[in-house]
Amino acid sequence: MALVVIGGVAAGLSAAARARRIDANLPIVVLEKGPVISYGACGLPYLVEGRVHKPEQLIVYTPEYFRKERNIEVRTGARVVSIAHPRREVVLESGERVRYERLVIATGARCDTLGIEGARAPHVFSLHTLDDAERMRAFLREARPRTAAIVGGGYIGVEAADALRRRGLDVVIYERNQNVLGRNDPELSGAVRRQLELHGVELRTGHTVATVDELKADIVVIAAGFKPNVAIASEAGIEIGRSGAIRTDERMETNLRGVFSAGDCAEVHHIVTGRPTYIPLGTTANKAGRVAGANAAGARERFAGIVGTAIVGIFGMGFAITGLSVEQARKEGFTPVAARIEGKSKPRYFGGGTTVVELVADGATGRLIGGSVIGEDEASGRINVIATALQSRMKVEEFAGLDLSYSPPFSTVWDPLLIAAQQLQKGLSVL
Amino acid sequence: MALVVIGGVAAGLSAAARARRIDANLPIVVLEKGPVISYGACGLPYLVEGRVHKPEQLIVYTPEYFRKERNIEVRTGARVVSIAHPRREVVLESGERVRYERLVIATGARCDTLGIEGARAPHVFSLHTLDDAERMRAFLREARPRTAAIVGGGYIGVEAADALRRRGLDVVIYERNQNVLGRNDPELSGAVRRQLELHGVELRTGHTVATVDELKADIVVIAAGFKPNVAIASEAGIEIGRSGAIRTDERMETNLRGVFSAGDCAEVHHIVTGRPTYIPLGTTANKAGRVAGANAAGARERFAGIVGTAIVGIFGMGFAITGLSVEQARKEGFTPVAARIEGKSKPRYFGGGTTVVELVADGATGRLIGGSVIGEDEASGRINVIATALQSRMKVEEFAGLDLSYSPPFSTVWDPLLIAAQQLQKGLSVL
Repeated sequence: MALVVIGGVAAGLSAAARARRIDANLPIVVLEKGPVISYGACGLPYLVEGRVHKPEQLIVYTPEYFRKERNIEVRTGARVVSIAHPRREVVLESGERVRYERLVIATGARCDTLGIEGARAPHVFSLHTLDDAERMRAFLREARPRTAAIVGGGYIGVEAADALRRRGLDVVIYERNQNVLGRNDPELSGAVRRQLELHGVELRTGHTVATVDELKADIVVIAAGFKPNVAIASEAGIEIGRSGAIRTDERMETNLRGVFSAGDCAEVHHIVTGRPTYIPLGTTANKAGRVAGANAAGARERFAGIVGTAIVGIFGMGFAITGLSVEQARKEGFTPVAARIEGKSKPRYFGGGTTVVELVADGATGRLIGGSVIGEDEASGRINVIATALQSRMKVEEFAGLDLSYSPPFSTVWDPLLIAAQQLQKGLSVL
Repeated sequence: MALVVIGGVAAGLSAAARARRIDANLPIVVLEKGPVISYGACGLPYLVEGRVHKPEQLIVYTPEYFRKERNIEVRTGARVVSIAHPRREVVLESGERVRYERLVIATGARCDTLGIEGARAPHVFSLHTLDDAERMRAFLREARPRTAAIVGGGYIGVEAADALRRRGLDVVIYERNQNVLGRNDPELSGAVRRQLELHGVELRTGHTVATVDELKADIVVIAAGFKPNVAIASEAGIEIGRSGAIRTDERMETNLRGVFSAGDCAEVHHIVTGRPTYIPLGTTANKAGRVAGANAAGARERFAGIVGTAIVGIFGMGFAITGLSVEQARKEGFTPVAARIEGKSKPRYFGGGTTVVELVADGATGRLIGGSVIGEDEASGRINVIATALQSRMKVEEFAGLDLSYSPPFSTVWDPLLIAAQQLQKGLSVL
């Protein structure tokens, strides 16, 4: 009668901790292949930058904590090589077999090196584990590189560019698509480009890298996206979705009863499109992990899904997205109508800067289906308002009437979100 | 066939401008009793502080702008003394009569001096109009007062205290209730008190002021709330609600057909309680004014109402509320369950400070019905997320699953909002 969790970072530990809350007596074992558990992977670029001084600052919990405080056994260096579901056993690299009754697969993802030649050279890094970041720090300290090439213009690529530029390197980002941040959105990509260039980072889009040699850089960071770790799941007969990640239902259960999955290896439901999606992020891993753990421990909980919210800081500016871009919406069969406005985040006499808000609606229903916000710190709060509206399937008309807070130190009397909504209403009314 | 609007600040001008958009040819006249129109009254404390240098900085539009750009006639110094609805005329102080077919009453509110003796003494001020703020500035410059007494611990009271303290005065706030910010919420009031005291402002609650003499202060600011200006409406047979403000329907129409009202003189629908409410704020004035103007010009629009969102900055901290406090909820017949947590606004290595989030749910339905946030700039974005959830009648369970943005420069991986929601779920589950 044991719960086995494969993976000891975000989703796995959320699942284990939640399972313990549901059932105080259930034996729970977490098997982590790496040397440490529970680290904030999103903080890795700041470890490289030096803002985070020590790797320990990013470690939230230790195996000892879980053992003592939660009565959960956490084993590090325990790599699972296969799942023998008919026997309800996982097999470790050592040959050891661990029995389970319920299983949570939180095997995460690995960096996609795109088959780039030379990816294993000593000056080439990825930025996925604590070990990656520590090795990169040592290289920066010892080899004193002066030029950096980043392969990939997603979140980690631009964060790595920011970190290395702040350390004084000349940085070029190579992105094979025309757009960055994994969002088919030329306006957003243009704004990211301007911000990068303003701070001396060059962005080369539409550029496919074949070998690291062609980059002619002292240090190379490959940040070209993730591939979900699904091999052992797939071999065990667990269904893989079209995205390549593990298919789950709203209880985060796979097609094998009693086997759950969450985190960077699993698909989740997209509330806006109504379809499964694969957007590996720590927030989703934690939330879906909790649901997987609760259900694995015998509760009946449901993960409503995500709306695709994300934010990245680039040299002090926030670039935030949620829902669908116009292009994504079109591909999903919507009739997108968009409005983009530039407003002040607060009155000039409180130092308000420019904030750009784009809202996307479905022309057929008037429902809000996406948005983006570019601004300073407050971009986060504004994108979250849009995300909340998406989650409750709000129409633009309702959104335009939101009772948002106002006082001069914090915002303008017509919040940029409401100005954008009014603009969008005009766009919808002429359809 | 003319639209007459009484009042040329937030609601009145929003109504006039929106009516023009609906009907390009409608004759529109705005009658404003004061010397200027369209000023940001919420900026007055910052004019007193000196952060806003000139009154002109707070004036958004001039009568000339409206005449030239919008083809709207705006008359200043035009005080309406009565409405002769059977003849569809308003009567000005001068005796002049102005005919209307549709009327928007946006007469605003006046400061409630609570019958305090000496309220007209030369060192006693209110902070309601641009003229009030200018006179106070002149007094500060010329009389060089060293001690200040503020009567009233609402938004304007604490903002005035902040402004005068920053100018170096010794400041005491007198509030007749036990709680401040007009919110029956001891925890919030305690936090406001601590912040005021930390910055050298004394707060005396439960203190009723009878005369200004007893305050023994060089300058006195009476900020004891507002009374809606409803006399001419009431005399014309327009129904006044229980709050003392003008009763309106969801189109912002009064009981007299063709006569609309919005702004600080009018009630609006409260989405959480489902009842009419009177919470005079600039944001509501603008939104309800737009709806009044649209309908007065022949459109059919609906004002969904408010959820009671407000924020005030006190010495750099934001105190934000939305929906109902526990006490308010109880009075409204709910069975409130609340959770209050203290979290980090972002990781320590990004300088994240403490943020306090309280969420209130109805125990009977699990629906979120209120919240408060105390934090730095980000309090605004967080309260807006709660407000958006209230507007869409979200349950705590859904709220706990919100897909909020995360990246270390902006927030923690579990946003304080979600931690509070998880806490609240536990509270609801034991009911």
